[in-house]
Amino acid sequence: MPEFATQPVAPMAITFDPAAATLTPSGPTLTRRMSDLEGLFADTEAWREAAEGENPIVYEVVSSPVPEADRELPQSITTIHPGQVSGEFWMTKGHQHPNHQGEIYLGIEGVGGLLLFDGEQRRYLDMAPGVIGYIPPGWAHRSINTSDQPYSFLAVYPGSAGHDYGWVLEHGMGHRVISADDGHALIDFSPTGAR
Amino acid sequence: MPEFATQPVAPMAITFDPAAATLTPSGPTLTRRMSDLEGLFADTEAWREAAEGENPIVYEVVSSPVPEADRELPQSITTIHPGQVSGEFWMTKGHQHPNHQGEIYLGIEGVGGLLLFDGEQRRYLDMAPGVIGYIPPGWAHRSINTSDQPYSFLAVYPGSAGHDYGWVLEHGMGHRVISADDGHALIDFSPTGAR
Repeated sequence: MPEFATQPVAPMAITFDPAAATLTPSGPTLTRRMSDLEGLFADTEAWREAAEGENPIVYEVVSSPVPEADRELPQSITTIHPGQVSGEFWMTKGHQHPNHQGEIYLGIEGVGGLLLFDGEQRRYLDMAPGVIGYIPPGWAHRSINTSDQPYSFLAVYPGSAGHDYGWVLEHGMGHRVISADDGHALIDFSPTGAR
Repeated sequence: MPEFATQPVAPMAITFDPAAATLTPSGPTLTRRMSDLEGLFADTEAWREAAEGENPIVYEVVSSPVPEADRELPQSITTIHPGQVSGEFWMTKGHQHPNHQGEIYLGIEGVGGLLLFDGEQRRYLDMAPGVIGYIPPGWAHRSINTSDQPYSFLAVYPGSAGHDYGWVLEHGMGHRVISADDGHALIDFSPTGAR
């Protein structure tokens, strides 16, 4: 057998419950409140008011026990709660993989969107249950909830990919997504505080 | 942006229909008939009779358009039809990843099993809709259908992993799975022709 820098985990069966948005057994869980999302929303004052007020949970990420280690293929479920900051839909921080690797998001409950940006080109994918959003290597990605119900998706990604949140703060995501009469509208990305 | 040996594909939405076992848009489809499965079943004579007779389709693999290229994360759906060869359940060829990378199988229709073997240790996981079978790097893997209905699963795997079918023919899978009164039974792996 080959030598591994990190010993692989054992084979395991993980129960995936789309309706409950759980993976069992589970690994780490991440909770992002409004106060964790500084610099994301165009309307800084509205963001600050929300963060210093009720400071709601914006999204949660539950992981399987498969570690973020080289050669492993971890999974997680993200649930974004419904909400807006001055008309801009609640979103994840978004990240680039410092080690450029592809990733999939599978919509499992509710509807939302997947923003992708490679520094030049930008894309937007509508997400719903049964849609796999494919994130090619080198594309930063952010998810949003465009509805009034929770939006959940299963992510599968190479454990060596990593998460670079600073790239998105520096470069943006190409688009912002705001509420509109017919659901949502894409507008050019503006830096935080520009509205 | 980084340089890539192979230019990444564009972001895309892929519709995943578990009931129909399809990915749309789709990429290559692979069909394995009994005659493609030489050396897999313990009872060589019974296998040959089936292969030279009706030569049924044992399993099919439909892929998404995401290529098996370095840094990409392709997906496929495998459907194993129900059947036995002298009591041994129909199975996939099974393979080892020459580039040791983890993989997930998500059960979507029907029930089956996932055999894993790292050359020393062996594991068997019961698979059903909503079960993620985790295949760690370095573990060869084979799927079987233990029922009288089709068994389908979604696979997600790094595009650089590769497929080594010869490893399984040489080393076996640790177990064979045969029909039993209460469903299925695991027996020690025996070479082809040993029964």
